[in-house]
Amino acid sequence: MNKQAIIHLPNLEDSYALNEKEAVIRLRAAQGDLQSVVLIYIDKYRHMFHDYHVWEQCEMARVASDGRYDFFEAIIPHDCQVVDYYFVLNGVDEAICYGYGGFFAENEHQLDMSFSMPAIQKDDLFVLPEWTKTAVIYQIFPDSFYRGDGADFEGWYRGPRDGDDHLGGTLQGVIDKLDYIQLLGANVIYMTPIVVSPTNHKYHISDFYHVDPRFGGDDKFAELVQLAHARGMRVLLDGVLHSTGLAFPAFQDVVRNGRDSKYWNWFLINDFPVQTEYPINYKAWGKLREMPNLNRNNPEVVAYLLDVMTFWVREFDIDGWRLDTVDDMSHAFLREARRRIHAIKPDCIIGGELWYDARPWLKGDMLDSVMNYPFTHNVLAFFGKKAVSPTQFSHGLGWLRGRYPYQAWTGLWNLLSSHDTVRFFSQLDEDVTAMKLAVLFQFTYPGTPFIYAGDELGMTGHSLQCRCGLWWDKRHNQELLAYYRRAARLRQENPALMYGDFDEILVSDERGLYGFARRFEGTEIRVFFNMGTAEQTISVLEGAVDLLEGEVVTAVTIKIQPKSAVILRHELQTTKNCV
Amino acid sequence: MNKQAIIHLPNLEDSYALNEKEAVIRLRAAQGDLQSVVLIYIDKYRHMFHDYHVWEQCEMARVASDGRYDFFEAIIPHDCQVVDYYFVLNGVDEAICYGYGGFFAENEHQLDMSFSMPAIQKDDLFVLPEWTKTAVIYQIFPDSFYRGDGADFEGWYRGPRDGDDHLGGTLQGVIDKLDYIQLLGANVIYMTPIVVSPTNHKYHISDFYHVDPRFGGDDKFAELVQLAHARGMRVLLDGVLHSTGLAFPAFQDVVRNGRDSKYWNWFLINDFPVQTEYPINYKAWGKLREMPNLNRNNPEVVAYLLDVMTFWVREFDIDGWRLDTVDDMSHAFLREARRRIHAIKPDCIIGGELWYDARPWLKGDMLDSVMNYPFTHNVLAFFGKKAVSPTQFSHGLGWLRGRYPYQAWTGLWNLLSSHDTVRFFSQLDEDVTAMKLAVLFQFTYPGTPFIYAGDELGMTGHSLQCRCGLWWDKRHNQELLAYYRRAARLRQENPALMYGDFDEILVSDERGLYGFARRFEGTEIRVFFNMGTAEQTISVLEGAVDLLEGEVVTAVTIKIQPKSAVILRHELQTTKNCV
Repeated sequence: MNKQAIIHLPNLEDSYALNEKEAVIRLRAAQGDLQSVVLIYIDKYRHMFHDYHVWEQCEMARVASDGRYDFFEAIIPHDCQVVDYYFVLNGVDEAICYGYGGFFAENEHQLDMSFSMPAIQKDDLFVLPEWTKTAVIYQIFPDSFYRGDGADFEGWYRGPRDGDDHLGGTLQGVIDKLDYIQLLGANVIYMTPIVVSPTNHKYHISDFYHVDPRFGGDDKFAELVQLAHARGMRVLLDGVLHSTGLAFPAFQDVVRNGRDSKYWNWFLINDFPVQTEYPINYKAWGKLREMPNLNRNNPEVVAYLLDVMTFWVREFDIDGWRLDTVDDMSHAFLREARRRIHAIKPDCIIGGELWYDARPWLKGDMLDSVMNYPFTHNVLAFFGKKAVSPTQFSHGLGWLRGRYPYQAWTGLWNLLSSHDTVRFFSQLDEDVTAMKLAVLFQFTYPGTPFIYAGDELGMTGHSLQCRCGLWWDKRHNQELLAYYRRAARLRQENPALMYGDFDEILVSDERGLYGFARRFEGTEIRVFFNMGTAEQTISVLEGAVDLLEGEVVTAVTIKIQPKSAVILRHELQTTKNCV
Repeated sequence: MNKQAIIHLPNLEDSYALNEKEAVIRLRAAQGDLQSVVLIYIDKYRHMFHDYHVWEQCEMARVASDGRYDFFEAIIPHDCQVVDYYFVLNGVDEAICYGYGGFFAENEHQLDMSFSMPAIQKDDLFVLPEWTKTAVIYQIFPDSFYRGDGADFEGWYRGPRDGDDHLGGTLQGVIDKLDYIQLLGANVIYMTPIVVSPTNHKYHISDFYHVDPRFGGDDKFAELVQLAHARGMRVLLDGVLHSTGLAFPAFQDVVRNGRDSKYWNWFLINDFPVQTEYPINYKAWGKLREMPNLNRNNPEVVAYLLDVMTFWVREFDIDGWRLDTVDDMSHAFLREARRRIHAIKPDCIIGGELWYDARPWLKGDMLDSVMNYPFTHNVLAFFGKKAVSPTQFSHGLGWLRGRYPYQAWTGLWNLLSSHDTVRFFSQLDEDVTAMKLAVLFQFTYPGTPFIYAGDELGMTGHSLQCRCGLWWDKRHNQELLAYYRRAARLRQENPALMYGDFDEILVSDERGLYGFARRFEGTEIRVFFNMGTAEQTISVLEGAVDLLEGEVVTAVTIKIQPKSAVILRHELQTTKNCV
């Protein structure tokens, strides 16, 4: 047994509350090293003062592997002051117990050797608002989205030359496309910044409190939110809190008045006068002169930014924020922002842009979700580049499922593209089949489908071309658009795809197959992808419905063609691990 | 190379800010598996937009081992938006790089494969108040501490029969012993609860806002704090926030009025009427009828408890809290309590009672310290039971040093006994030599020496006998008391023992030796313990002073007898790892 690979981080990612009455306990081991793991646990104070020796036990399920580790998991009831627990590890060559005190033989001071998990605290629960479970997010880059019905589209179908090149999209354009967005199956609109800024992307902010007049101003935004809400849709804004634009009045005041400005400590300026040409003498986002960093250690700035975040919730009733490079903000700030926003609107969410391991932010006290770029990379490698096997794909996805809490990985924003990436369709060399498979996976795998507007139209584009005017004319891909609508409807009509548990059920490199099941309230949906080169046969349970074909399968097997998917639904008795 | 044993938890315990400008990066590997680890790092945005290829590198130091893992560590400057980094692992059979993307060959997409650490946020820094560095805590169980000068000591020198048996110690008794405590070398008094309660231990609280009249009431406590502060001493109180006593008026109101009581939701009552005899029908601490749990999910209760915590700071100017079974409180509560207390008194601290892995609580946002029972167990096993070798002792201590952040493990409350344990001297079968070695270790190892009043007098006692009246008469051990004073003075006179870095420098099972060095501002203190059975010889650097003998060592070696210690001080040029 590889004992150094036995990992359990108590009261961190490996023991945590799932809800008020249940806890998740996890353990990692070297992949393939353990045949089974049994969790042994007890109500500590029942043990100490009352019924000695009443240990419960529960076989843990292997829920993921990542190529290095197997991840075992159990869900146990937890409604007491402290649960003490340890693991019985059954390896090929030995069986041994493992607890806080290290490795030990069974029946040897179990209580002294145990890990402890304190009472579940309601305050600390990681709870996503119910609406996020059914959310499909549609990301809009307003300047290039739509100019509005009847507008002149002269010069629209091109990529902007740079941030100063305006295509002229407006919020009226978004309003005019609400039918379209809703028909697509999206119910949440996330817009990149809309506040006053000289650039088309508006990440260089001049005024945090007003909508850019080019986009239609404050009233138009209020109208958009109201119309969206009337349709049961929600609106997220992009919060750029780490820096301002050069035109931000406080920064201009510092440029003019230097150390005498009352805002001198709002920024991080090395010496005066301020030099706004390279080499600049202030801290700036990405070291870019256009984005002087705000000094988030200055309590005045913190108060200002908290006010900005609550202002848009309070005044415009937005449903949440996507915070730009959220790792630029302190944990203390994010916790306080969450607290204040929830005080105004309890089901308001905060998501973040983060390109790496998001565990520290996804514990229920800071963020609800992040943009899931690891998802993008795995999906691209498997469906697009065909560069990884089903096993490698499984490991790529398993890395995250084994480490993030359940509430986190089931609520991630699963995206294929964004305004910061090459269009996914371009990454696929415009392979429509691959795109469809990726989209189907996006709409069936746990997490929130997140569509970068235009992807559904088959738009292409590298670098700034990913921000070019949306293909509202004939050039767009009708077939792909129809497929997106179908995938979204499939999800919407099947609660198991939104609420269901997840289990990998088929990973075969030889056959090129990857399959998983989602289970919810007695219904199971099985999703299979054939990324191999030959037709394969899959067994079918009685009464299963083929959801893509829309018919009951009468045979006991079904064929799955190369580069295609099959989705089957059937009823079953749910069995859950240990609870 | 055991790749599954290569562990790095980014932005959790393995990359964290040490101060505003420096970060600690850690990596774990199977013990003995790696010959060296080199950290390669870069300012991400300098890399992306400016000087390509300017990676820095730094050899990591092996700072601890725990029997399973070696812990490697480097301290790097970090004053930018994001540091990207990876590791070069040099094993016996291979050298390979390791980053967020997994294992890779050198010069292969380093930036894509790197871990990322965002900017250091001042708000999130873990900073202990300066005074804690020089603190020596003296724990007092007031009922059995001292009745006051001139009081009648009839019946004092006995253990209480139970919680209702009062020995009659008072706060005046504590005041009368301030000279004694200060002469002992302690400068922080921590008292178990002093608020109104029918029991001698006062964990069953009737009134959270007043000092028990038996102890002398509010005015006497105010006088004690004032007198202690006048001497430069500090006072910590014991916060029991998870439950009340049966006599607490709100609970009595619920007993009387059931569901009609306005406090019905202050507790966790299954059904009415309340049954206060077993089987009880309410949640209670440890399932004990005498301690009905407060419902900390009720915002009224949370507000009440926060007010209690701030009240004693605001009204009595206490210097901190020790929170009883702190894992009963939510993280959200602890963060808010910290915030509010700091707003009143920024250098006020919160420590906690916690018997297991304290990592989740020791990140700078909740607790400053916890009672370090793992320290107790390791010291008992090595100096007391002689049950572990120097290597095992080193591993026992290393477990914690390799996992807790530097700010946490250097500020833990290192105790030998408490009111909840068997007296340490009893655990040692009253072996004075072993006790002295343990005390010397306690006063030289990083962390805050924490003395349970009476230990210094050579008191013995199991279970409730550990709470018996202090041996102020002739029965106490003069030799041990003198040794405590000497150990405390040694620490006080040598800043390296309070502020110094820590390095193990000698771990020899064959010779029975364990030695470490503490370095601070050009001074190094070396501490050696011989737990073997033979005299050993240790080499001595030129000009070293033998601190226990108080003389310059003129020879190049020094003898160390079995079951004894040698402490040497000499001047040196400090070298620090990488910064």
